Amino acid sequence: MFNDFKVLDEDRPVYIQVKEYLKRMMIKGTLQGNQKLPSTRELGLLLGVSRNTIIAAYAGLEEEGFVYTLQGKGSYVAAVSFSSAASVPSWQTDWSSRINGYARQAVELDRMKRGIRADKKTISFTSIAPDEQLFELDLVRRAFLDRMAIEGNVLLNYGYAKGYRPLIELLMRYMEHKGVDMQGKDMLITSGFTEGLDIVMSALGRKNGGTVLCENPSHHTAIKNFKLNGFEITGIPMEHDGINLEELKQALSERSYDCAYFIPSYHNPTGIVTSPEKRIALMKLMAEYQVPVIEDGFNEELRYSGSHALPLIATAGQGNGVIYIGSFSKVLFPGLRVGWVLADKELISYLESIKRARNIHTSTLDQSVLFQYLHNGHLEKYLKKARSEYKRKYEWTKQCCEKYVPFARLSGDGGLHLFLEFEAGFDTHRLLESCSSQGVIFTPGDMFFTDGGGLNTMRIGFSRVSEEDIGTGLRIIGETAFKQLRG
Amino acid sequence: MFNDFKVLDEDRPVYIQVKEYLKRMMIKGTLQGNQKLPSTRELGLLLGVSRNTIIAAYAGLEEEGFVYTLQGKGSYVAAVSFSSAASVPSWQTDWSSRINGYARQAVELDRMKRGIRADKKTISFTSIAPDEQLFELDLVRRAFLDRMAIEGNVLLNYGYAKGYRPLIELLMRYMEHKGVDMQGKDMLITSGFTEGLDIVMSALGRKNGGTVLCENPSHHTAIKNFKLNGFEITGIPMEHDGINLEELKQALSERSYDCAYFIPSYHNPTGIVTSPEKRIALMKLMAEYQVPVIEDGFNEELRYSGSHALPLIATAGQGNGVIYIGSFSKVLFPGLRVGWVLADKELISYLESIKRARNIHTSTLDQSVLFQYLHNGHLEKYLKKARSEYKRKYEWTKQCCEKYVPFARLSGDGGLHLFLEFEAGFDTHRLLESCSSQGVIFTPGDMFFTDGGGLNTMRIGFSRVSEEDIGTGLRIIGETAFKQLRG
Repeated sequence: MFNDFKVLDEDRPVYIQVKEYLKRMMIKGTLQGNQKLPSTRELGLLLGVSRNTIIAAYAGLEEEGFVYTLQGKGSYVAAVSFSSAASVPSWQTDWSSRINGYARQAVELDRMKRGIRADKKTISFTSIAPDEQLFELDLVRRAFLDRMAIEGNVLLNYGYAKGYRPLIELLMRYMEHKGVDMQGKDMLITSGFTEGLDIVMSALGRKNGGTVLCENPSHHTAIKNFKLNGFEITGIPMEHDGINLEELKQALSERSYDCAYFIPSYHNPTGIVTSPEKRIALMKLMAEYQVPVIEDGFNEELRYSGSHALPLIATAGQGNGVIYIGSFSKVLFPGLRVGWVLADKELISYLESIKRARNIHTSTLDQSVLFQYLHNGHLEKYLKKARSEYKRKYEWTKQCCEKYVPFARLSGDGGLHLFLEFEAGFDTHRLLESCSSQGVIFTPGDMFFTDGGGLNTMRIGFSRVSEEDIGTGLRIIGETAFKQLRG
Repeated sequence: MFNDFKVLDEDRPVYIQVKEYLKRMMIKGTLQGNQKLPSTRELGLLLGVSRNTIIAAYAGLEEEGFVYTLQGKGSYVAAVSFSSAASVPSWQTDWSSRINGYARQAVELDRMKRGIRADKKTISFTSIAPDEQLFELDLVRRAFLDRMAIEGNVLLNYGYAKGYRPLIELLMRYMEHKGVDMQGKDMLITSGFTEGLDIVMSALGRKNGGTVLCENPSHHTAIKNFKLNGFEITGIPMEHDGINLEELKQALSERSYDCAYFIPSYHNPTGIVTSPEKRIALMKLMAEYQVPVIEDGFNEELRYSGSHALPLIATAGQGNGVIYIGSFSKVLFPGLRVGWVLADKELISYLESIKRARNIHTSTLDQSVLFQYLHNGHLEKYLKKARSEYKRKYEWTKQCCEKYVPFARLSGDGGLHLFLEFEAGFDTHRLLESCSSQGVIFTPGDMFFTDGGGLNTMRIGFSRVSEEDIGTGLRIIGETAFKQLRG
């Protein structure tokens, strides 16, 4: 006994490691209830640590009730030892039979769980996360230290469900500068865009049987979210400058919808920016049919070219029919889970109560670091750098697509990804299989389609791929696709 | 024009403030599409800022598409100005009619929204959040800087739905040291205890019509959560050492339950620690009737007295029927929204997909700061300090209750709160009204009851009240209650 102790971690206090070592012996039953423990000096010698370390370990165990001391006699293992647990029969629950349809569907729709695992050498076009090389760690560190110095205690205790007030005020101003009429509007901070959308969908009534109108293809996480919240989806095809208005009109005339969901800037997955004219036309239709609009602003900040196009919520003026969901996850730091829902005041009040019921509030640390970073004026400079970096990569990826995959139709006006459409009947899953064995992976496009289509499409996320790898990867994709097309 | 510019915030770069000033003029229509802007020198003079500031502001506006430049002629407001929005009719949506029952119920059950607002002079016994005076800001700062130095880039980009791996490993070891058999178990990190419970309840099937068994009274957020997830609640009365086993047996024999929810340590709101013997007896019953158990470990870490009592999940040995939900929010930092669900591996896999669908993952910054803080061995020392501090306050609050409110039955073995029960027919809401006007507030107990009872009870949270205020506050409560009892 006591001959197998090792200091496992140089960074952690040794007395804690001794404590844990002794606890493990109690759990296993090697040390039994009411058994006398060696004296502190003795055990110190046996374990090769100082006597003070053993004293601290025994004191800790006593405080937690694992050990008791008899004056002048020494330390003993507490009587209520772990072995008492043996008297409870350990029964097995068949969880798969206790799980409901929602949980089952969440697993079925969970693409990440069945994604291809990439090793470090794989050229992966699957991500549209920002390039972490661009992160300004020093400025984040500074923002954290600044805020901690101002109100560290406050940041670490409970906050408000609606969000961290300075951040809300800053983001309200920020949205106002995008042209939004803030009269009658309010904001809820969420743990990223996804939570914002999930909370909105969980709150919406289903007067029309639970129906949502969106672009086809569309953001797969949104599609998953609609399904998990019990909504049926009607997808309207995309054109080079946004949704097909004729088809949209047709769909609107055929039935009623509970809401519509649009991604006007660098649409996921097609990369299309809806033109200013189409935004106005789209919103006129929504006003005519009184369909509330959920606007996904996820890529809004990355816009680097062309004239300014207003967010849909800005075109609505004093109307309260648009719910804008924003996030800096594709620009700044996705690890900080912060998004925002800007909408009608009354609606936000409902959403706030749902947020509170679900997880009380979003991390105050995340919110305050983001606030301070923005407040210090770093976003502007960062965006300049990020936009020019991503623009360069976008141009290069586009060139490579045109060179190596000229037989696929290309779309995408910028942002972090491009979209390829092959001739009908082409199978990008088969292409992926073959490319993957050559060390190149991408996202087959069918997961973005609302109607089971898009088997001949794929998304190319370039943000985290080096220029050299972009060239190599697209060459392999092009050559492999060419063979497949001929075969 | 240009005569009302002011630098509003000394901390923010002035060129950004100029940019925002000009944008506001475009939004309001003071600056119209294709209107020529003053030269940079001219505007600098008009606004009283340097020419370089104006150059930077114009460049920023141009990059965002709000301004265009004609070579040799100057800068102009972009043609697609905000006024185009005027062409979209702004329609009003009646959100209250578009909201579903879930959202409505979330508001109805939202106690925080209707809570009494306390000003700074009010003595408030409503909180059971930790005392922020105890927070060790330097150590949190250190943990943050340590982790940022090691892998800052990683922390700021997307992480995994299951959680930050080093934290999971540490918490698995931590739970193992509480006596849990980890074979076949796994862990999901959530944004606090509440999210853990919400995700679990959203996943559980309703074979038995959606029924949950729990202590009565019980944690009001849990009760809210059960209701919002469509479960019916059966509450079993508490005794001084835990749930009433006879009544529990009776309830189990009468119908089947989909799950049970227990708070064995410093039960909310009664403060009772379920005795080791009762834990075993309770778990034997659960095993006999095969009812899955959700164990709320929220106050587990604060236990400072008596012999060690195993968490229920530890008494279950190799059984997989217990879902343990833990959190450090009542000990360490609630602002860091981190909790964990320890349960059967297969179940965790379902919960992981739900977590991903809802908000991708919990803040990596929160998780990594918590990890590093724990890894550096600070928890042990902190707990020692916190336990002794809270114990002192607990003893004092108990004394004050006995002295000033001797006519109420007192319960609570420690933790951050005590519970008072007055004679039947007494109304603590009426008491609150009267005390509140004297600057003292507390939590009436009925919100914790599953059956509409408890109108004669109240919870006294003492963690954030000074010893002097505890005395004054309880004296006022006692005197006011006495008058009310006589009246």
